[in-house]
Amino acid sequence: MTLIALLTDFGLRDTYVGQMKLVIAGIAPGVPVVDLGHGVEPQQVREGAWLLETAVPFLPEGAVVVAVVDPGVGTARLPIVVRAAGRFFVGPDNGLLSGAFPPEARRGASPGSSRVSVPPGIEVRSIDLARFALPNVSATFHGRDVFAPAAAHLASGVPFQGIGPRLAEVSVLPPFEGVRLEDGRLQGEVIHVDRFGNLITTIRAEQLPARCQARVGAFERIPFARTFAEVAPGAPLCHVDSSGFLAIAVRDGSAAERFGVGLGAPVEVEEA
Amino acid sequence: MTLIALLTDFGLRDTYVGQMKLVIAGIAPGVPVVDLGHGVEPQQVREGAWLLETAVPFLPEGAVVVAVVDPGVGTARLPIVVRAAGRFFVGPDNGLLSGAFPPEARRGASPGSSRVSVPPGIEVRSIDLARFALPNVSATFHGRDVFAPAAAHLASGVPFQGIGPRLAEVSVLPPFEGVRLEDGRLQGEVIHVDRFGNLITTIRAEQLPARCQARVGAFERIPFARTFAEVAPGAPLCHVDSSGFLAIAVRDGSAAERFGVGLGAPVEVEEA
Amino acid sequence: MTLIALLTDFGLRDTYVGQMKLVIAGIAPGVPVVDLGHGVEPQQVREGAWLLETAVPFLPEGAVVVAVVDPGVGTARLPIVVRAAGRFFVGPDNGLLSGAFPPEARRGASPGSSRVSVPPGIEVRSIDLARFALPNVSATFHGRDVFAPAAAHLASGVPFQGIGPRLAEVSVLPPFEGVRLEDGRLQGEVIHVDRFGNLITTIRAEQLPARCQARVGAFERIPFARTFAEVAPGAPLCHVDSSGFLAIAVRDGSAAERFGVGLGAPVEVEEA
Repeated sequence: MTLIALLTDFGLRDTYVGQMKLVIAGIAPGVPVVDLGHGVEPQQVREGAWLLETAVPFLPEGAVVVAVVDPGVGTARLPIVVRAAGRFFVGPDNGLLSGAFPPEARRGASPGSSRVSVPPGIEVRSIDLARFALPNVSATFHGRDVFAPAAAHLASGVPFQGIGPRLAEVSVLPPFEGVRLEDGRLQGEVIHVDRFGNLITTIRAEQLPARCQARVGAFERIPFARTFAEVAPGAPLCHVDSSGFLAIAVRDGSAAERFGVGLGAPVEVEEA
Repeated sequence: MTLIALLTDFGLRDTYVGQMKLVIAGIAPGVPVVDLGHGVEPQQVREGAWLLETAVPFLPEGAVVVAVVDPGVGTARLPIVVRAAGRFFVGPDNGLLSGAFPPEARRGASPGSSRVSVPPGIEVRSIDLARFALPNVSATFHGRDVFAPAAAHLASGVPFQGIGPRLAEVSVLPPFEGVRLEDGRLQGEVIHVDRFGNLITTIRAEQLPARCQARVGAFERIPFARTFAEVAPGAPLCHVDSSGFLAIAVRDGSAAERFGVGLGAPVEVEEA
Repeated sequence: MTLIALLTDFGLRDTYVGQMKLVIAGIAPGVPVVDLGHGVEPQQVREGAWLLETAVPFLPEGAVVVAVVDPGVGTARLPIVVRAAGRFFVGPDNGLLSGAFPPEARRGASPGSSRVSVPPGIEVRSIDLARFALPNVSATFHGRDVFAPAAAHLASGVPFQGIGPRLAEVSVLPPFEGVRLEDGRLQGEVIHVDRFGNLITTIRAEQLPARCQARVGAFERIPFARTFAEVAPGAPLCHVDSSGFLAIAVRDGSAAERFGVGLGAPVEVEEA
């Protein structure tokens, strides 16, 4: 059984997401729609790509993801569908769908995304607008007018090969991972701030030394812990988040408030 | 296949919407429920009516909309169901459901809603509370106790004729459109502020002169553009929004913040 | 037909809830998932328990609730499933699931939860992690890794008896109700602040004297009314909320702002 999962920067105070769901229901009645999330910071393609990538391991076979963080809406960037490992990813060709591609294919890309060859085993197609977009495509809301209907057609039986012409290249972001400096320290950045004020970083659990401490903003030596319970209430810690990435947190508090930093803030890790 | 779409001013921090969904699931198991949106500003019937109207083109045949922005809950205003063009609209008789009626039927209504004759082709019924409301109707939450169960009964097969007695009159708001002044300028207002700080107005695309500029608050000559990409980052623009109405925006920024205005602010458009 | 209802303090700006839904869809495809709510204040187990309790009357037979407000995640508190009156409640054993238990079983518990014997007619089991958790359980996100998969297995046919070993004791909170003072006054607290700024209290409708007035913060003699329409716009009132509890409100305004109080603020009621 298929499903359509939605990830956008549209938030939930408007009816943008609701309109996408109505369009999907009209084309693919009965296909379940799951809100993966709509809280990507406006226009933050990198954050959206990270949120998508961390959800990929939980996508059921056959799932169709519609991801829309699209500062270039109305410009030349192509609307695409990626098929990878039996899942489908529908969205703008701006790096947002990078999580569908393995790290090797993304290494060396520039932070703002680079065009690379589509790696073997993965297929990318541009969406045939004449066949799959709504009759009147607005200049600013391709989530409703292009991506939602294309995903609904896919989920209701249109074969992937029929979605549009195959592309040889695709835009990807570099892998989310810490950069190792000459002195052995790892350098990363805050890639997501969650509801609790946890600062989640681009540094992967596998990169961490056995004993480490972190630094963010002017604050040094934030100790590593396995769980919040290992530090005192109100104390800062860094830990491996449920995403598999290093996060900086404050027990029973907000690290974003405590450290006064947000999305994009540099983070460093060193041996303790 | 039918569906139930919800539009309310309940927000999502409480369990109000969740309780409505449990009530629906109990009466109409298996009927899909779509959140059209819950971010209408508290008690803003006009904004809710506009959000509903702009979603009508995307409602599948047979859809049942439950709309609740209901400052008069617990007073004499009737709970109604409107059937128009094969869709059903369930909510309070306070103008919120105006989008189900054509502009001709609404012209001349006062801004706070007027009672008019139900136009031909549309049918309005009041909800028979004894048959369709929950056994204990609270004084403040008819969304859960009246509107959700009535919609669920409709969606699960109760014929529209059985919902309650037919009404000859209904409350409607005037059409959402700019008013043309003697000197040719168009006057409207901000009817919705979206997540991105875009100021969406009551002025329709069809009303705009070929070349125009807008004014909001103390700010004049906001230039018209087709897409955000046509202006520099940080620059203001007005454009036709995905709703088909004129919106005032700031590229990569918030017009609400830049211009310091919100819901109800007057907007003017003149030839450029 | 079953359904899975979710109540958490995860909010909706992240993909936490979305990841739970993907896990559920992978295990129990086709089972409807209802968001009861995700706006519990971070870590506020008492508020979460109250929100759950007030939704219990609306749960269809067979419903599976997943509730996660879990400051002790990663510590020794057990993951449990409660079966009561044909409904299932999945979550941490920290008092959050108290709404599944009758007031008699909870009387005398300490405000921070106490362990009591499971009352007759109700069954509690701990979740067999080896069988029902995801292969890699994170230290901080049991909503995704333990509770969602256990609920999905239950909803897709695993018998309750197979979920894990039966427990004789469970953690519960005292019943939500006002405490009667010697002079007859009722003492309670604000247990939830809703989107409109209404202050909902622990004092039950049945406890109220025929004519009463309330006090919160430094503000005295807030008059009782049946509906908002009985007081002037901008005037404060107390009334029986749709939950069946006393709420303090301001007509067309926010009581939270007017009175400058929030979650946990003491409230008193006396005869008028």
